[in-house]
Amino acid sequence: MQRKSFEDMQCPIARSLERVGEWWSMLILRDAFYGMTRFDEFQQSLGIAPNMLSRRLGALVDSGLLARRAYQDRPLRYEYLLTPAGEDFRPVLLALMAWGNHHFAPEGVSTRLTDVRTQRVVEPVLVDADTGERLSRERYVIQAGPAANERMRARIELSRQRRERRRDDTSFPN
Amino acid sequence: MQRKSFEDMQCPIARSLERVGEWWSMLILRDAFYGMTRFDEFQQSLGIAPNMLSRRLGALVDSGLLARRAYQDRPLRYEYLLTPAGEDFRPVLLALMAWGNHHFAPEGVSTRLTDVRTQRVVEPVLVDADTGERLSRERYVIQAGPAANERMRARIELSRQRRERRRDDTSFPN
Repeated sequence: MQRKSFEDMQCPIARSLERVGEWWSMLILRDAFYGMTRFDEFQQSLGIAPNMLSRRLGALVDSGLLARRAYQDRPLRYEYLLTPAGEDFRPVLLALMAWGNHHFAPEGVSTRLTDVRTQRVVEPVLVDADTGERLSRERYVIQAGPAANERMRARIELSRQRRERRRDDTSFPN
Repeated sequence: MQRKSFEDMQCPIARSLERVGEWWSMLILRDAFYGMTRFDEFQQSLGIAPNMLSRRLGALVDSGLLARRAYQDRPLRYEYLLTPAGEDFRPVLLALMAWGNHHFAPEGVSTRLTDVRTQRVVEPVLVDADTGERLSRERYVIQAGPAANERMRARIELSRQRRERRRDDTSFPN
């Protein structure tokens, strides 16, 4: 992964991608949510080279998303378990899954989120935690938080200007 | 990005990552949501090499997430606009943003999702579209869809077994 400047890393999206912005890392987390814990399980599921898997698991442990735990003494063997921060990644994967199912499943859907109690298929949507309202782009906007630096503020100001342009110019897409 | 076997690509998460599973692509989409449309704007925001930006923009156009539109004739200049499939990526970015703000913002929050009507700060959560219930891991599970292949079914079956093990073994984390 190519690194950006430390300055720009203030963006929480960029910082998150620094931990998982890599194909294999997200698929390892996906498989951890499927209940896999052992090196062999990840390797078989992903068809990934052992040295690459070892490196990605180590990076996820260093980032605090997986915890390594010995499950056998002789020979010593480890398993990898989701930490609370790793567990919190689940909405990102569910949102990715819903997006992939909507747009990139020409032969039909291969996975679906299901309520185990009722077997009903569930569509995940992102809402305002307080009101339950869906987060439309025009109403729910990104604003600067207390720690925002100049670069972040400039991006957010541009965003505000473009929003107004879209509002005024009805010929502009979106 | 390393390619996985076509077989395994059935997973909607893997297929989504094939389109955006790369640091720059997600940050370009992020900036498109901030209202950026022009090559120079993306370049300035990202500090990315022009040939790399050009390649990533082209890949996002090929994947149908951005549309290229001429905005000037002499010299010919293009801008890049989110397509409907690109717009649908927004929940993934908002989920990443919330995750980054929770776990990787030691100096405080730099961006916050805000309701423009009330200026209230909004916490995005993923819920069942029909009931509004939060999607807890134990109750809402992935099951095979009609198009699931053998590999996908095996992964989902493992997931079911591990869920039962977690339920039976209270000493098991999660």
